[in-house]
Amino acid sequence: MELERDAIERLLDDWPVARLSTVSPSGAPEAVPVVFARSGGALWSPIDGKPKRGGELARLRNVRAEPRVCLLLDHYEDDWSLLWWLRVDGRASVVGLDAAGAAGAAAALRAKYPRYAEGVTALFSGPPTLLRIEVVRAFGWRARVLG
Amino acid sequence: MELERDAIERLLDDWPVARLSTVSPSGAPEAVPVVFARSGGALWSPIDGKPKRGGELARLRNVRAEPRVCLLLDHYEDDWSLLWWLRVDGRASVVGLDAAGAAGAAAALRAKYPRYAEGVTALFSGPPTLLRIEVVRAFGWRARVLG
Repeated sequence: MELERDAIERLLDDWPVARLSTVSPSGAPEAVPVVFARSGGALWSPIDGKPKRGGELARLRNVRAEPRVCLLLDHYEDDWSLLWWLRVDGRASVVGLDAAGAAGAAAALRAKYPRYAEGVTALFSGPPTLLRIEVVRAFGWRARVLG
Repeated sequence: MELERDAIERLLDDWPVARLSTVSPSGAPEAVPVVFARSGGALWSPIDGKPKRGGELARLRNVRAEPRVCLLLDHYEDDWSLLWWLRVDGRASVVGLDAAGAAGAAAALRAKYPRYAEGVTALFSGPPTLLRIEVVRAFGWRARVLG
């Protein structure tokens, strides 16, 4: 059944991880787990200090050419009556800390993830860079009512 | 750092859930959680009896037009030193139980997911349909050595 609107709002505020799907310049889908926070009506994901595989990140290259992205939040467990997923179709842009709303987004990320606030992991790796994702639509599915 | 080959092989055999990314006919990425099993050198995901959102599934429509897919396996927890992800770039096809290897895949799915074997959830919803995903490449990242 459809995931209710209040559950969607709560998950976008609180759920710690999403899988970001983008489309490569050759038209193939690519996915990577990301952290994110909601701020100022958009979703924001930092290019943070977690080790990366090197080179310009594919997600940035992809988004610059094709801004349409998909964020998937979901929960898996062996009891399939507890499954749910939430899909966000969005439009992403690559921005720096000087962008409108970016400072608020950085504060929201530090508030959501203590490791950033405590300095265990750098919020930004190199020049501060964020994906700003405008939510075009958000919808989801659940096997039954969420607790 | 790179996820080791033996960890990749183990995860493809044992990890219970993946996020499947496909590309829509309009060129946008779409993602959904899926179960899967490895059999005969490919990965297989059934269109099973879990409730769906209705209509022909977007994943089938997408794959028929664009066979390139991405499967993401990953683990999230608050301790980011334990993070890892595994990405499979593949080519998918929509097949029935009469396809080469499909009967073995159905057996592998029942062995991996007791709910199928026990009949709690139907392995197939309607005419048996599977996504067969040929692995083109598999690679991953981990924050540190997996336990």
